[in-house]
Amino acid sequence: MAKRKPISSNIAWSTTDKITVKGLDLCQDILGKVALGDMAFLELTDRLPTPDESRAFNAIAVALVEHGLTPSAIVTRMTLAGAPEAMQAAVGAGLCGLGSVFVGSMEDAARLLQEAIPDAGQTVDIAALAASIVDRELAAGHSIPGIGHHIHKPIDPRTPALFAVARETGFSGQYVQLMTAMADEAGRRLGKSLPVNATGAIAAIASELGLPWNVVRGIGVMARAIGLVAHVLEELRNPLAREAKAMIEERALAHHHQ
Amino acid sequence: MAKRKPISSNIAWSTTDKITVKGLDLCQDILGKVALGDMAFLELTDRLPTPDESRAFNAIAVALVEHGLTPSAIVTRMTLAGAPEAMQAAVGAGLCGLGSVFVGSMEDAARLLQEAIPDAGQTVDIAALAASIVDRELAAGHSIPGIGHHIHKPIDPRTPALFAVARETGFSGQYVQLMTAMADEAGRRLGKSLPVNATGAIAAIASELGLPWNVVRGIGVMARAIGLVAHVLEELRNPLAREAKAMIEERALAHHHQ
Amino acid sequence: MAKRKPISSNIAWSTTDKITVKGLDLCQDILGKVALGDMAFLELTDRLPTPDESRAFNAIAVALVEHGLTPSAIVTRMTLAGAPEAMQAAVGAGLCGLGSVFVGSMEDAARLLQEAIPDAGQTVDIAALAASIVDRELAAGHSIPGIGHHIHKPIDPRTPALFAVARETGFSGQYVQLMTAMADEAGRRLGKSLPVNATGAIAAIASELGLPWNVVRGIGVMARAIGLVAHVLEELRNPLAREAKAMIEERALAHHHQ
Amino acid sequence: MAKRKPISSNIAWSTTDKITVKGLDLCQDILGKVALGDMAFLELTDRLPTPDESRAFNAIAVALVEHGLTPSAIVTRMTLAGAPEAMQAAVGAGLCGLGSVFVGSMEDAARLLQEAIPDAGQTVDIAALAASIVDRELAAGHSIPGIGHHIHKPIDPRTPALFAVARETGFSGQYVQLMTAMADEAGRRLGKSLPVNATGAIAAIASELGLPWNVVRGIGVMARAIGLVAHVLEELRNPLAREAKAMIEERALAHHHQ
Repeated sequence: MAKRKPISSNIAWSTTDKITVKGLDLCQDILGKVALGDMAFLELTDRLPTPDESRAFNAIAVALVEHGLTPSAIVTRMTLAGAPEAMQAAVGAGLCGLGSVFVGSMEDAARLLQEAIPDAGQTVDIAALAASIVDRELAAGHSIPGIGHHIHKPIDPRTPALFAVARETGFSGQYVQLMTAMADEAGRRLGKSLPVNATGAIAAIASELGLPWNVVRGIGVMARAIGLVAHVLEELRNPLAREAKAMIEERALAHHHQ
Repeated sequence: MAKRKPISSNIAWSTTDKITVKGLDLCQDILGKVALGDMAFLELTDRLPTPDESRAFNAIAVALVEHGLTPSAIVTRMTLAGAPEAMQAAVGAGLCGLGSVFVGSMEDAARLLQEAIPDAGQTVDIAALAASIVDRELAAGHSIPGIGHHIHKPIDPRTPALFAVARETGFSGQYVQLMTAMADEAGRRLGKSLPVNATGAIAAIASELGLPWNVVRGIGVMARAIGLVAHVLEELRNPLAREAKAMIEERALAHHHQ
Repeated sequence: MAKRKPISSNIAWSTTDKITVKGLDLCQDILGKVALGDMAFLELTDRLPTPDESRAFNAIAVALVEHGLTPSAIVTRMTLAGAPEAMQAAVGAGLCGLGSVFVGSMEDAARLLQEAIPDAGQTVDIAALAASIVDRELAAGHSIPGIGHHIHKPIDPRTPALFAVARETGFSGQYVQLMTAMADEAGRRLGKSLPVNATGAIAAIASELGLPWNVVRGIGVMARAIGLVAHVLEELRNPLAREAKAMIEERALAHHHQ
Repeated sequence: MAKRKPISSNIAWSTTDKITVKGLDLCQDILGKVALGDMAFLELTDRLPTPDESRAFNAIAVALVEHGLTPSAIVTRMTLAGAPEAMQAAVGAGLCGLGSVFVGSMEDAARLLQEAIPDAGQTVDIAALAASIVDRELAAGHSIPGIGHHIHKPIDPRTPALFAVARETGFSGQYVQLMTAMADEAGRRLGKSLPVNATGAIAAIASELGLPWNVVRGIGVMARAIGLVAHVLEELRNPLAREAKAMIEERALAHHHQ
């Protein structure tokens, strides 16, 4: 038998009378004492949040729960229409689309911020840093992630709401400043208003909370799972999937017959 | 063009400056004020919970987040090992297994309770009802869902913790009593201790909260999505999927060579 | 260490210089000699098909590959629009909807046929059997699976094509006769033409081929995976997912504003 | 109402009495005449294959169907263990892992070959091209995709079998030569035998067939869907998922208790 590498997990383990999750006693320390958002923070960071961390984290997670009839929600509803006995797979299918396009800009923004200020403790010249990042990204033909919005104009109303929570909880530091400065700078260069949108605000606050950029997509995935369950329930009561499918097919057929 | 049925959704909609979710203004009423668990309650029930409802609902949702190296967690980790660029699909794949076997007993228990007491307001003879249900189910060759546990003996430690929360929040009524009475009755008939397990406790408390039985699986799906993200993060830092796969393959090969 | 049950699989195994699949040497006996449809037959039945079996099996599998802009195809396209880097998850999400509704009628028809004639070798009175099944199903409030079609009228053109292949290959026995007799009988009772549709024809021919009814859904799943890859490729070149999403959202918004 | 872009698909459409797929009449031209592998070729390339194309394409597709207890197969089996009522989701979950790691090397090899010889009609100096590619890739710290194998030594037995089919069908041109030359060159530089493996052979033959590199992953996805259905069927008859899960959990627990 070949020599085996270890298989280990430090997330949870049980004995006959005790369940430990992330080092805490589930029954003594968690159930009835820790709310779902704080449990999510524990799962992501290995510790419970302070009250300020809890409020800031819950705000960004909640902002990601529900975005209406997104492609993911339509996917969940169409999957449920074919397999109503497997709502878990309908939610799973809906999550599969949370990739580089719809959730990626949030991840990209967090990465940009964290690579620009790798050590949150260092003091940087925000304006100069923003200018150099925007220079570099525009020169490379990239757009700046986390700014502008095709519907919410002139501003995304979630941004001031989230940034207010960030100020009140003490998480409005250099990442929030850099995100705002990049939006200002990009708007100036491109000659149009491109304020920070919700994904940029969430990326900045997540960075303030010390969450690594590759965890940010995970917040989107867990939050959206909650929203997709709501779409399952509405689809069961007030279905739209079949009609949406018929409408798409009819449009495609009309095009075909031209 | 054929006459079309309506396509409508009452979950969320936006204008340029306002986002409404379940009738509330996302930016004014929700962000920074509503925590993730209460947002989940809103998504499931169309209203925010009272403080007692919040505590009871968060307790049952939190109990479902993390169960260690479950088949779902292994699925998520093995999928991530093949497609680390698509963590959302790894979580989605993990959710697909939350079907009749692992989440079904919770759903079955909630259904049994709610069909036995369709109107929570009516007063019933709990002992007689429990006896008749156990009679019927055992006669039909069914097991009683929500009782007994293969590891946690003599009792599942989550049950007293969850039932304590239920008492403290005023959600320890007839559904909790019926669940307990069914467990006692089944244990008596079968001559062994079969106390209420976590799934039975969650099913009873969800019923106390007025959540329809077909919503209960949805709580499991959303909660487990949170836990699966934690397994993604641990797999990225401390992988076990390849070793687990090698171990399985080696065992199968050993069997083959016998 | 607890006593372990065996882990074994007889599908495939390898040594350094040889790969065995279902008992055949992959490199000597399969590659270049066995086509994809016959490989699928081997995977499902543990042996290669005869030429007649091959032709009949390939015909029913091919009939299931492509049905145009189905909900599954829309799911795959919308998932790809969000995560173009993960086409495998887009196909996986599309498969999730092949459940009781869209693929179920084929499975139900095969089950009905195989439960009615459990031993293909026994000779039965087809007309009497069809009448008793239709009696029983209509009395129970069920519809007869595998008959009628909402678009293809008066007949589903695939049915005569598939039944012709069945005759030419010697797979037009009692299951095909029973399927046809049930359709006739149901049409007579309900006073309208309800000829065998493609799912009924496939169910009958699969039964003639000796494929258990619970394998029939698997043929649909594997065949549709081929079709969904074609939708991935077309979506990459000529996308429709975003426009379809915009159309659905607009319809929902219009309803909301009434 | 905003101006809408077209929604169109040229894959399939139907009238009451005719179904057209990729320009062919499904009932007249396809059913009973076109086998599953050729249908897949039609779906990918918009035309039926010649007999030689058919044999070469079927060989590479068949080579991808079944690789034993892969992570994907384990994912499908563990998902089925939790949701046996949804085999389509078990297959869908299994496909989600066919990403950059396990299928990516085939895609990477095809891309490398097609970018090196963008026009199959041009005659190139294979040895010089191979040397310059290996130089460039090794200098960049990349490994060469499609060469070497951790089990099949000294050679992957599928490679000579596939390359023999390529020769017999006239698809053993410059892409096959370049793939072989890169393997030789890399082996020389790195001082060990690194012959072309099955993924390299498939990538080369797919390139010979004129299939764009981003279609190659699609062949893997559709072929593996067939194999995963076989794992569903074996898991239903001879389950291993629960025992595999118990073994993983036990190993993790043992590690924890050290």
